[in-house]
Amino acid sequence: MSQDAATEGDLRNTGMSLRHDREWDYELDRIVEEIEERDANRVGLQFPEGLKRRGPAVADDLRELCGDDVTFMLSGQPCYGACDLDTYLMRRTDVFVHFGHSPMKESEKIIYVPLFSNVDPFPILEEAVDELPEEEVGLVTTAQHMNRFGEMVEWLEERGFDVHTRRGDDRLTYEGQVLGCNYASADIDADQVLYVGGGKFHPLGLAMEHPEKKVLIADPVNNVVTVADTEKFMKQRYGAVHRAMDAEKWGVIFCTKIGQGRMEIAEEIIEDNDDAYLITMDEVTPDRLRNFAMDAFVNTGCPRITTDDGPQFHKPMLTPGEYRIAVGDEPLDSLSFDTFHGTW
Amino acid sequence: MSQDAATEGDLRNTGMSLRHDREWDYELDRIVEEIEERDANRVGLQFPEGLKRRGPAVADDLRELCGDDVTFMLSGQPCYGACDLDTYLMRRTDVFVHFGHSPMKESEKIIYVPLFSNVDPFPILEEAVDELPEEEVGLVTTAQHMNRFGEMVEWLEERGFDVHTRRGDDRLTYEGQVLGCNYASADIDADQVLYVGGGKFHPLGLAMEHPEKKVLIADPVNNVVTVADTEKFMKQRYGAVHRAMDAEKWGVIFCTKIGQGRMEIAEEIIEDNDDAYLITMDEVTPDRLRNFAMDAFVNTGCPRITTDDGPQFHKPMLTPGEYRIAVGDEPLDSLSFDTFHGTW
Repeated sequence: MSQDAATEGDLRNTGMSLRHDREWDYELDRIVEEIEERDANRVGLQFPEGLKRRGPAVADDLRELCGDDVTFMLSGQPCYGACDLDTYLMRRTDVFVHFGHSPMKESEKIIYVPLFSNVDPFPILEEAVDELPEEEVGLVTTAQHMNRFGEMVEWLEERGFDVHTRRGDDRLTYEGQVLGCNYASADIDADQVLYVGGGKFHPLGLAMEHPEKKVLIADPVNNVVTVADTEKFMKQRYGAVHRAMDAEKWGVIFCTKIGQGRMEIAEEIIEDNDDAYLITMDEVTPDRLRNFAMDAFVNTGCPRITTDDGPQFHKPMLTPGEYRIAVGDEPLDSLSFDTFHGTW
Repeated sequence: MSQDAATEGDLRNTGMSLRHDREWDYELDRIVEEIEERDANRVGLQFPEGLKRRGPAVADDLRELCGDDVTFMLSGQPCYGACDLDTYLMRRTDVFVHFGHSPMKESEKIIYVPLFSNVDPFPILEEAVDELPEEEVGLVTTAQHMNRFGEMVEWLEERGFDVHTRRGDDRLTYEGQVLGCNYASADIDADQVLYVGGGKFHPLGLAMEHPEKKVLIADPVNNVVTVADTEKFMKQRYGAVHRAMDAEKWGVIFCTKIGQGRMEIAEEIIEDNDDAYLITMDEVTPDRLRNFAMDAFVNTGCPRITTDDGPQFHKPMLTPGEYRIAVGDEPLDSLSFDTFHGTW
């Protein structure tokens, strides 16, 4: 990554090797075109956590391509989704490029670069199909593999599967796409769903949201096929609800991130409960909540902080639905995964 | 703090005991008056870190005093000064109450409650005067003790001192007030300055900014008299500058907090240095900077993060002035404390 200091000027046609990595398609040409078209001077670049360290090299290449009149500013804010735009940087730049996620809501100002992966999904699909006993199968993936989604459907159909796909709701950009907080694309008429993508974050959410379905993970990044197992998570959820049943003072968290606000739900809780306090913040972290002497918390922001990071907090943290169980408004068997709908 | 559940209605004249602690003056009457005058429905409350846990009890008392039509929202954002307003909460509430700091800039929307202390400064002043060999003395304190400042001046004059005080610049509200980043009130014609207040945070900054003066600390909270000693800090600063001299890639931090932005300084650095990258963020933390593969950082935000928290970061972090030394633009002996002037 650290090459010789770049020479100046427009090098688009010189064949000079650019600095950025080749694992992901940063769509530099499209970005440069938009910058030129809008005559932009200040350009904001926001990367998700895992790719922040690639940011400077991408900025280097864009500087080479755009010349000295354009200032690039890297967002140093944590970022975990298209729900999580750096609105400060967005307001203060002419063009704002958000990498790694597909549009949750289109805007003139924002260029979304979903970062399509160059990984080949078919070798791992070859292994996965042996684990799909039925003909009917749902297919879902993340923004990173959307560039191959049509091919994957065809490939499965060629092998005799009846592939069910669905666009989901307006929080999702593409047919077959899932987010950590939204699995509406898996509301399909099949008992098995094939998830293609890296890691277990998305398929675990999918399996929690659709406990009646078998969720098969075909992971082309780590080259493994597994079945999503939510047992540990579900035990943790029931444990948190039980511990919160004794709580007197409740902190009700309203998340100020652009795509994570559910004020109506938060206000409903504090209106009904005199011992509930509305607390607003962007990053919901153990350190920040430790400042408040509460017995339990309800998180109306990102449900994955509640389910995945829950055990790291010093007091039980529940989803709004779990809160209603803990205070006795709903029965224990109504416990379900908290999903997030709509944009902002 | 946890008393019986509050009964409803306006209890202002019932003599009911309120829930908040009595250490600080929260000026509830003034807040209630402003809420009523503005017919406010949504009220934001922001406390500094050390007092966040008092927030819910203060909210309880305000709820009692204002009735059910007013919704109180507690800011869960970190807060370290009047430079650090929760602008999100401010924009979304009718009245925004900022506790613990005096106004950096007045605004219709904001009620500043400096939280005057009820501690008596005179017993410790009695001890401190023995350590002041000269007649000429500067006197400074923090917002918390401003309610006694006039008395302190008189008290010292009665004992034969020639007391020098100064308003400082427009970042400061009161004569004799210091901030962690601004000691303009100590630009006075005396070789010794008496600081009255809790802790060493302010007097250490004062001593770094005015290395030629003796800074005597009279701490009425911990009941000690000491002389500010900056040796450890100064060694750390020289060490950081030396380690950064080999840096190739620089991250230049622009802090997005309302009173901590110095964009001109940040842009000047990146314009002059092709290996410098502008990074924007609100909280400047070791975790956030670890995401960027830089050799060193320049922090144009709060200077106290650089000097006090510097050793916690994985790479050297310098003030803008220290950066100029590290890159060879200024001599090593120009090293000085980074102060912050103006408002926003």
